[in-house]
Formats: sequence, structure tokens, C-alpha cells
Amino acid sequence: MAETRIITISREFGSGGHTIGQMVAEQLGIPCYDKELVKQIATETGFDENYIEEAGEHAPGKSWLAYALGAQNSTSSTKGLSMNDFLWTIQYRVLTELAEKEPCVIIGRCADYILKERDDCFDVFVHASIPERARRIVERFGETDQSPEKRLADKDKKRKVFYKHYTGREWGMAQNYHMCLDSGKLGIDECVRMIVEASGMKKK
Amino acid sequence: MAETRIITISREFGSGGHTIGQMVAEQLGIPCYDKELVKQIATETGFDENYIEEAGEHAPGKSWLAYALGAQNSTSSTKGLSMNDFLWTIQYRVLTELAEKEPCVIIGRCADYILKERDDCFDVFVHASIPERARRIVERFGETDQSPEKRLADKDKKRKVFYKHYTGREWGMAQNYHMCLDSGKLGIDECVRMIVEASGMKKK
Repeated sequence: MAETRIITISREFGSGGHTIGQMVAEQLGIPCYDKELVKQIATETGFDENYIEEAGEHAPGKSWLAYALGAQNSTSSTKGLSMNDFLWTIQYRVLTELAEKEPCVIIGRCADYILKERDDCFDVFVHASIPERARRIVERFGETDQSPEKRLADKDKKRKVFYKHYTGREWGMAQNYHMCLDSGKLGIDECVRMIVEASGMKKK
Repeated sequence: MAETRIITISREFGSGGHTIGQMVAEQLGIPCYDKELVKQIATETGFDENYIEEAGEHAPGKSWLAYALGAQNSTSSTKGLSMNDFLWTIQYRVLTELAEKEPCVIIGRCADYILKERDDCFDVFVHASIPERARRIVERFGETDQSPEKRLADKDKKRKVFYKHYTGREWGMAQNYHMCLDSGKLGIDECVRMIVEASGMKKK
């Protein structure tokens, strides 16, 4: 079996998966890519000009990227290419190139699916119970008009629908990952330790 | 959080989850209960005579238990109680009593669901890719008229339908377990090590 070069972390909102991914990357001394970094890389590389122009037509007064990345829930289409499809195309190509470039941790972005043909990925899913996640999002992001449970339900639904649409898979199925961990039961530090160890990658 | 006393191992057919469960129990020096042992306990304790008599009426010439346990796919019902319902009822009560009695490993039997109200359970799901499982069942159980892939598909479907019917949950969803492991990627020994460690239980 090929040595692990890339760790993908998929996670439920509020599970601490993002923090876990960052800590794993820190311990291994490799970069950690999440939504912001993928966006930045797409901007810096002036990614895919044809797509940029095409999408630009339909987002006057906004940068193509801000529009594309901010429109995850749009169902409108532009010449058959919805904003979500546009985002997906960018994401797909940025992640594919990142994976070629260097060992890294990738958080979210359906990386488990996009890189599924590679045998050097270690795919992790982090989840936790509703009460545990509710506690965590209030602690990290504060209260809002909506109950934390409602905020979780909304996010869960969006991720589930998005993932199903683009991958054809069910969000959260154990079979899509090499390891799934309940961060509420195990604790953040223990999850980090187990992922680092199971990946077989060397600590820095 | 309560200390772990019980480890439940749910597993895909051919994933090695049964072997893993036995090895975990061995390392912890605690009993391991699977289908055969649950059946034996039900027999020894002369479990639930009313149910036995009722089911017995519909299974002439066969012991009530052999009939009930061998009829997982039956959809026939007896006075509103199908053979599957009968099995479920026995299983539910045997497992509930076992969990009270002593620390143990329980393999299969929807124990993750049946014992879900307890906070001293550590619930594990073991899975592996189709090629890995196909290799394993041929190695362990030999060839049959059916392709190993077909045998896997049949078993997967049965477990999925049974689990859904009695628990209302989707089989294989990460959220139902504290830890899910791909035994093909990680290897049997590594899975055992990780489960023992994550459970926090003391080795014998």
C-alpha cells in the first residue's frame, strides 16, 4: 500500500474537525488547506480564465470568485453552468493540483471524493453528537437568533445535499472514509493523536 | 464521561470485524459475545417462555430457537409477531441483561442500537473495500457457486434492511458509532490496537 501523503478531513459543523485538521498538520509540519486557502490559491493562479469570464458575466459588480464561492446555495444556472458547478470545477482542479504538489492536510471541499483515485490519501470523518456540537458552536461563534440545533440542522442539510449532488454518495457513510471519529466521545487531542498515528506519517 | 465497560463491534461481512472483536476481548481479558453465544445464553436461560410457546406453535418439529434464529429473512408473522420480531425481542433482552452483568465485547446483534442509552459503551464499526472483503471471504469460507461480490452484496443488503427496520437508522452511518475503521487500509492488528487504546479499558 502506498505511503500516506495527504490527509483529508471531512467533518460535521461544530465537531471540531477543522481544529483537529489544523493540529494534525501542525504536528506533521505540513500545510493545511481549507476553504480560504483553496480560494486564495485559485485567485493567485488566475485559475481557468474561460470559467472566470463566463461566470463574470452573470455577477456584475462582484468579483467572479466572491460570487462563485459565496453562492453555494444558488440554483440558478449560467449557460448550463450553475454557480455551484462553477465552484465545483475550480475546487476539483485546485485540489487535484495541490495533491500532486506536496504532502498536506485538506479540510472539507469533498476532498475524499475528488482524490479518491489516489492511493496515498488517508480519509477521515469527524463527527459528534448534537448536544456536543451545539455547545461547541455557541462557544466558538456565539449565540444568534436561531437555536444552535437549528443552525446545525441547516448546515448538516446543506452539506448533505451538496455532497450527494456532486459525489453521488451519502454524507457521513463510514465506507467513504478510512477512519471516522466521534470527537465528543474521544476528545480533540485524542482524535489528533489517533489520526497522526494511523496515517503513518512522520511527525516533524 | 463514564468509563467504558462494553465494546460493541458492528461490521461488514468479510471485513474481519468478528476476528477483531475476538482479539480485542482476548487482549482485555473479557468475554466476547456473538450470535452463537447469544443463542446459547437464550437457550440456557430458557428465555421468555411465552414467546417460546407462541413461536413453537408455528415451527413444528423444530426447536423454537433454531427456527427463530434461522428465519431472519422470513416475513411471515405469527399472531402479529414475525420470526424476525421474535428474534429481535430475545436479542434485545439478552443483550440488555448481558450489559448489566459484566464488561464484554459484543459482536453484531445491533448492540450499538440496543444499548444506546448506556454511556459506558464504546461503539465501533469495521468495514473494508469490496475487493478486500471478497478476498477475505474466499480465503475464510472458500468459493461457492456465487461470485464473492454477489455474496457480499446479498449480505450487505440483508444487514442494511434488518438494521433499518429495527433501528430506524441507516446501516454504516458514521454518526451511529464512536469509531469506524477501514480494516483493509489499517490492517487487523492495527484496528485491534486502536480499539483497545481508544476504549480506555485496561489490558489484562
